[in-house]
Amino acid sequence: MPVDLHHPVRATLDAVLDAARPDTSGEVASYIPELADVEPERLGIALVSTRGDVHDAGDSDVAFTIQSVSKPFVFALALDALGVDEVTKHVGLEPSGEPFNAISLEAASGRPLNPMINAGAIVTTSLIAGDTVEDKFGVIRSGLERFAGRDLLVDEDVFSSEARTGDRNRALAYLTKSAGTLAADVEVATTAYFRQCSLSVTARDLAIMAATLATGGVNPVSGERVISEDAARWTTAVMTSCGMYDESGHWMVHVGLPAKSGVGGGIVAVQPGQFGIGTFSPRLDARGNSVRGVAMLERLSAQYGLHMLAHRGDALSAIGSLTTSDGETVAMLRGEIYFAAAEEVLTRLAPLVSDDGCLVLDFSGVTRVGSAVRQLFHALPSAVGARPDGSPRVVVLDPDGVLG
Amino acid sequence: MPVDLHHPVRATLDAVLDAARPDTSGEVASYIPELADVEPERLGIALVSTRGDVHDAGDSDVAFTIQSVSKPFVFALALDALGVDEVTKHVGLEPSGEPFNAISLEAASGRPLNPMINAGAIVTTSLIAGDTVEDKFGVIRSGLERFAGRDLLVDEDVFSSEARTGDRNRALAYLTKSAGTLAADVEVATTAYFRQCSLSVTARDLAIMAATLATGGVNPVSGERVISEDAARWTTAVMTSCGMYDESGHWMVHVGLPAKSGVGGGIVAVQPGQFGIGTFSPRLDARGNSVRGVAMLERLSAQYGLHMLAHRGDALSAIGSLTTSDGETVAMLRGEIYFAAAEEVLTRLAPLVSDDGCLVLDFSGVTRVGSAVRQLFHALPSAVGARPDGSPRVVVLDPDGVLG
Amino acid sequence: MPVDLHHPVRATLDAVLDAARPDTSGEVASYIPELADVEPERLGIALVSTRGDVHDAGDSDVAFTIQSVSKPFVFALALDALGVDEVTKHVGLEPSGEPFNAISLEAASGRPLNPMINAGAIVTTSLIAGDTVEDKFGVIRSGLERFAGRDLLVDEDVFSSEARTGDRNRALAYLTKSAGTLAADVEVATTAYFRQCSLSVTARDLAIMAATLATGGVNPVSGERVISEDAARWTTAVMTSCGMYDESGHWMVHVGLPAKSGVGGGIVAVQPGQFGIGTFSPRLDARGNSVRGVAMLERLSAQYGLHMLAHRGDALSAIGSLTTSDGETVAMLRGEIYFAAAEEVLTRLAPLVSDDGCLVLDFSGVTRVGSAVRQLFHALPSAVGARPDGSPRVVVLDPDGVLG
Amino acid sequence: MPVDLHHPVRATLDAVLDAARPDTSGEVASYIPELADVEPERLGIALVSTRGDVHDAGDSDVAFTIQSVSKPFVFALALDALGVDEVTKHVGLEPSGEPFNAISLEAASGRPLNPMINAGAIVTTSLIAGDTVEDKFGVIRSGLERFAGRDLLVDEDVFSSEARTGDRNRALAYLTKSAGTLAADVEVATTAYFRQCSLSVTARDLAIMAATLATGGVNPVSGERVISEDAARWTTAVMTSCGMYDESGHWMVHVGLPAKSGVGGGIVAVQPGQFGIGTFSPRLDARGNSVRGVAMLERLSAQYGLHMLAHRGDALSAIGSLTTSDGETVAMLRGEIYFAAAEEVLTRLAPLVSDDGCLVLDFSGVTRVGSAVRQLFHALPSAVGARPDGSPRVVVLDPDGVLG
Repeated sequence: MPVDLHHPVRATLDAVLDAARPDTSGEVASYIPELADVEPERLGIALVSTRGDVHDAGDSDVAFTIQSVSKPFVFALALDALGVDEVTKHVGLEPSGEPFNAISLEAASGRPLNPMINAGAIVTTSLIAGDTVEDKFGVIRSGLERFAGRDLLVDEDVFSSEARTGDRNRALAYLTKSAGTLAADVEVATTAYFRQCSLSVTARDLAIMAATLATGGVNPVSGERVISEDAARWTTAVMTSCGMYDESGHWMVHVGLPAKSGVGGGIVAVQPGQFGIGTFSPRLDARGNSVRGVAMLERLSAQYGLHMLAHRGDALSAIGSLTTSDGETVAMLRGEIYFAAAEEVLTRLAPLVSDDGCLVLDFSGVTRVGSAVRQLFHALPSAVGARPDGSPRVVVLDPDGVLG
Repeated sequence: MPVDLHHPVRATLDAVLDAARPDTSGEVASYIPELADVEPERLGIALVSTRGDVHDAGDSDVAFTIQSVSKPFVFALALDALGVDEVTKHVGLEPSGEPFNAISLEAASGRPLNPMINAGAIVTTSLIAGDTVEDKFGVIRSGLERFAGRDLLVDEDVFSSEARTGDRNRALAYLTKSAGTLAADVEVATTAYFRQCSLSVTARDLAIMAATLATGGVNPVSGERVISEDAARWTTAVMTSCGMYDESGHWMVHVGLPAKSGVGGGIVAVQPGQFGIGTFSPRLDARGNSVRGVAMLERLSAQYGLHMLAHRGDALSAIGSLTTSDGETVAMLRGEIYFAAAEEVLTRLAPLVSDDGCLVLDFSGVTRVGSAVRQLFHALPSAVGARPDGSPRVVVLDPDGVLG
Repeated sequence: MPVDLHHPVRATLDAVLDAARPDTSGEVASYIPELADVEPERLGIALVSTRGDVHDAGDSDVAFTIQSVSKPFVFALALDALGVDEVTKHVGLEPSGEPFNAISLEAASGRPLNPMINAGAIVTTSLIAGDTVEDKFGVIRSGLERFAGRDLLVDEDVFSSEARTGDRNRALAYLTKSAGTLAADVEVATTAYFRQCSLSVTARDLAIMAATLATGGVNPVSGERVISEDAARWTTAVMTSCGMYDESGHWMVHVGLPAKSGVGGGIVAVQPGQFGIGTFSPRLDARGNSVRGVAMLERLSAQYGLHMLAHRGDALSAIGSLTTSDGETVAMLRGEIYFAAAEEVLTRLAPLVSDDGCLVLDFSGVTRVGSAVRQLFHALPSAVGARPDGSPRVVVLDPDGVLG
Repeated sequence: MPVDLHHPVRATLDAVLDAARPDTSGEVASYIPELADVEPERLGIALVSTRGDVHDAGDSDVAFTIQSVSKPFVFALALDALGVDEVTKHVGLEPSGEPFNAISLEAASGRPLNPMINAGAIVTTSLIAGDTVEDKFGVIRSGLERFAGRDLLVDEDVFSSEARTGDRNRALAYLTKSAGTLAADVEVATTAYFRQCSLSVTARDLAIMAATLATGGVNPVSGERVISEDAARWTTAVMTSCGMYDESGHWMVHVGLPAKSGVGGGIVAVQPGQFGIGTFSPRLDARGNSVRGVAMLERLSAQYGLHMLAHRGDALSAIGSLTTSDGETVAMLRGEIYFAAAEEVLTRLAPLVSDDGCLVLDFSGVTRVGSAVRQLFHALPSAVGARPDGSPRVVVLDPDGVLG
């Protein structure tokens, strides 16, 4: 009879949720009445690993509008379709040290400073395929649905209000159009942008979307590849330096998870290769970030060591054992082999390559080899060549195919 | 008879060096004659893994002045001594989108925007212990010597020139003093800063210094702990968002290694947990970054996959095998277990915890367990409790002590 | 038989024109093809005194589009209709130190910095009565026609091009609308603004328009009051500090005539109480000011002493003669009496007021008394009272009514 | 027996003082204790006409430190000694739209934006002759004494405090030195500047100093020429656009008197050709301007019509009478003849020049002829030539020498 195990990850999320719950500071966004109507006490979190397991707590299935959290995902779609060189003709990559609605463009190029401020996000939307709002938004919606792994609806009331009051965003669009960086008609770009911001999501959706960036572009729940590895890396890099507006440096020091927030109360955070997180709590601080969302992510990072740059502890040697018999030396490798481990293996084993015997590198205990270092091992046997008798100096055993 | 194996890492560095060598664009720094006198063709690189192996190529042992590359290391010393809360009372953490000699301070706090611009670096130097130039610089020099693992000399000619022409830096110091953020006398702070910038280093030194950040604060060659893990993480985080001035966002997208450059021609780059790199080539681009240093790091990142956020390939399951006999289920774990792998293990094995038998988690094939997730496993046996007969439901085997 | 006298003012204009003619530097505006088509050699100037005489030279009757020279006149119409308090709820009065197309709004109020930059001019246009383009532009056109004293036509080709390419101006309009300072629909305000800028004028028109400001609001040729004295003074004040964009301070030092330039090649300049000038020459400097227009105004100011703040030479005493007979002292006043002269008269004559005789102030030789100081003289007889015998101590003679 | 006449100008000052007195808003400057110690209720005003009469009310003889009010006068000394071209190599003329302690320099030239902000004032002080503080400050003090017409003392307590706490000003000095625009050693320039700011003056002193600018450089009380007419005009022009920091445009619209304020509580205001005013009231508004000083000047301008650009009423014709007998036409001219009146005379009388008789221009009723237009009349007789019989066509009578 199975025991009802309270899963430690779920327990962690519960604890984080409980610690954040009492904080009632901040204000719900109120620039349009539809946002002001949200229940301010809502509080939810979800975490999805790159292996596709979903853990959540609280109001993780309550819907709210995605708002600016859409920006990195639409940017990712643009990067996937056009590549970073084409996209950066239209929008920069630099942190602005400015708030979300900053109007300054790069003097020389007329580009918005980065795709996480509104001007840059509207330009990004303009880069998505399609000449009409319907076509362009169709591409965006289906892209975000693949990130989330389910159909997403537009909150039409929020959309109507956004469209009615969005004059500053129209100003930004005209500014970029006059600078030559907007790639669509102003009304098409802004309307598609308002619809994109009005998509209804949950904390669970956001976690799956973030996890899709963490895996390098594959939705770990649906298994579908949504964007290329390059697009996922570029997007995560921009979130690293620009995701939290004029708090981005503080966030990188204190939380260390590439992230993006929206005035609907949502935040996404990513740890590449590990997991994605989505949070929801509607009250915002002065910068427009969810007060309790920030608090939960700070606690997760500080208490549970999820900072992207945290020291991960010392590894055992990648060479589990080294045994020689009959002129054959077998090195049993183990663990995950990225640059440092590969370098260790090569440095320690190089002196053992000789004409007197064969060196066998056995990868059967290895769970992952960084794609960048695989070529170092692939190339090794031919690089060191054969012994005088024609037999190889180095043999690589890779029963599980971790060398690709 | 050993074969003379051309080490693949060394070969990589050679290739990168050769690719960069023909580029003669840029200009040697000339704001003081001592810098203008350097041989412009010098070109060197060194890479030091977190396991302490040193690889280098070209003029990796040629000395030059460290200049702004000193900033993250002195910042690390200040963080180590005072903690991030105290240090950030004096200097901010935000990317400025401005060049190195920017004069804007945060309006509310009077803090320089970050420790990588000159104003912030001078404030950082002012925070180092010592009331006199001798005392303060003594602490800085001995700290940087521990980072480098050897004694470092001041280039007194460069120092004299810097001190003589350093009026803009004095202006920045007076500005921060008047704003209340400078923690020392202006002349003491600036003189110590000019001496710090005039320290003579090599690309090899820089690589070891960078590797000391990559290991979480331990010099991997000398084995000495130089700063705390926290200080190393905070420093690397600031390099991530502010290290390359108004190119930081571009750098994070295209290179993805926290880095810092100096007008002496040096650059350091770090991949946390993996390695540190130092490069040297004196000709600078318009932003003051070494032209060929940037080119070498871009190539290393693009061609050899060293981007910090690069997807590392799919891992095999962390559960190497699962065998049941006599009511005992043994899960042979393997690889490196951070959050995602720990989550997988817990999620897949939870249903197997029961009163009917014992679940054994065998960590003997595991090379590293992230310090943040160790507690999840430590807590497990007591969390799930004992069976009715008093025997444990879960047993953890950790022969190599990877769980700490 | 009259002699054909070459009028000295006309001779001055000819000389100024000839001195400027050889300069072929600068470029005709080319952001729309219609402006690029103008004949670059055109060169004209006109001067109109506050007494209504018109002097001109060169191509003073060649038509060109008014462009930004319309800004102060439409601002004057808005001030006349609404008053300075209402208008400054929407647009500021501060020099910006920025170019004409600056986008920064005042942080607290959302107002454009001043009405001479595009954003402020569009807001000014939005303040003019009328809900449709036709109504609003109708008011503007008829107002500018009264300034010029003749019917003005729209250059429809220029208008079409401006409207087609005016995205930056639309951006500015949306920005002010979102900040709450635009007083009309964006499309109405910008279209009326584009039409206003496309009005066709001559240097002679501009000189009459400027002279209308110089007289305090009355067109000196037609005799019609166009705006109030207050509106004329406020407008001239704003031209003083903001008229020449980021050259305004230099202009006030070196030329000293409140002025406004346009990319059509026109400039207006005003000396309050004296004259208005209009110039036309299409080639522009890097700031968008007519090269030869600037040169002609600099020469007029430097060589002919037209700087508004120039010392006007020492005046003779305002008391032409002082004669006493039969207990009656008669002070024959003369010249123009503003504050300083009034103060002199009062200070010197005060000791002569007594019970022993009558002091007679005779204004028959006075040509003008500043309106602000008239009250000082009006109040005098009753202020000093009557002598014991009931006869007045002070009598004021004003045969020409210069005391109003 | 003379009647005790309450002088209308003095009565005006009394009224203005009484109206301002009840306002107790604002705060005395407190950045150094010596300024905080001033009696906050002090309130004084003085007005000095260009003819040298002094009128004052309230605490017009109470001493306070001149502070930033010294800036235009030291700027005037520098202009007088070096000319505007040399001075503007070091400091700009443009309004900054920034507060007094702004640190931004012009990008291309490294010049402070204008001489009324601290950076520009320190550079101005550096331009004054003298290599030592004693020499340089000696020149400044004796210059300001000639402006004021009496000896001025340094408030040594204020000076010591300013020098001790003046780090921001030292920062500005180092900044300009590093940009190449400071013309002296930093310590010399800043110390002389601190001493200059610590000079002790009264409202009466300021009024005389301002009147010296109003006369075109001659102290109207002492009769001494202090600076050239050019230097006076340039200085007044800069006060027009930059005198009241980021309120300069508002000030020109609402007050219309070139002015300068200081944190000691003083303000000077100038109406060129008419008068100078000095006010004193220590409590400052948020921008650092004396609350009641501003209020008094606003009231004087609004109620008594002292705005520099105010319409001065319509003038009578400059031709008082025109009589012809025996072939001789005599035009009796009158009033003050500047450009507009000269233009009228020439335009109306030109048709009367003929071979049939002599035209006599009689200037005996004219009190002043603008220096710029004198040449028009001087040149006239020879320009129109003689009649066939050798007798002149035009004769100019100038018994008082108003044509110079």
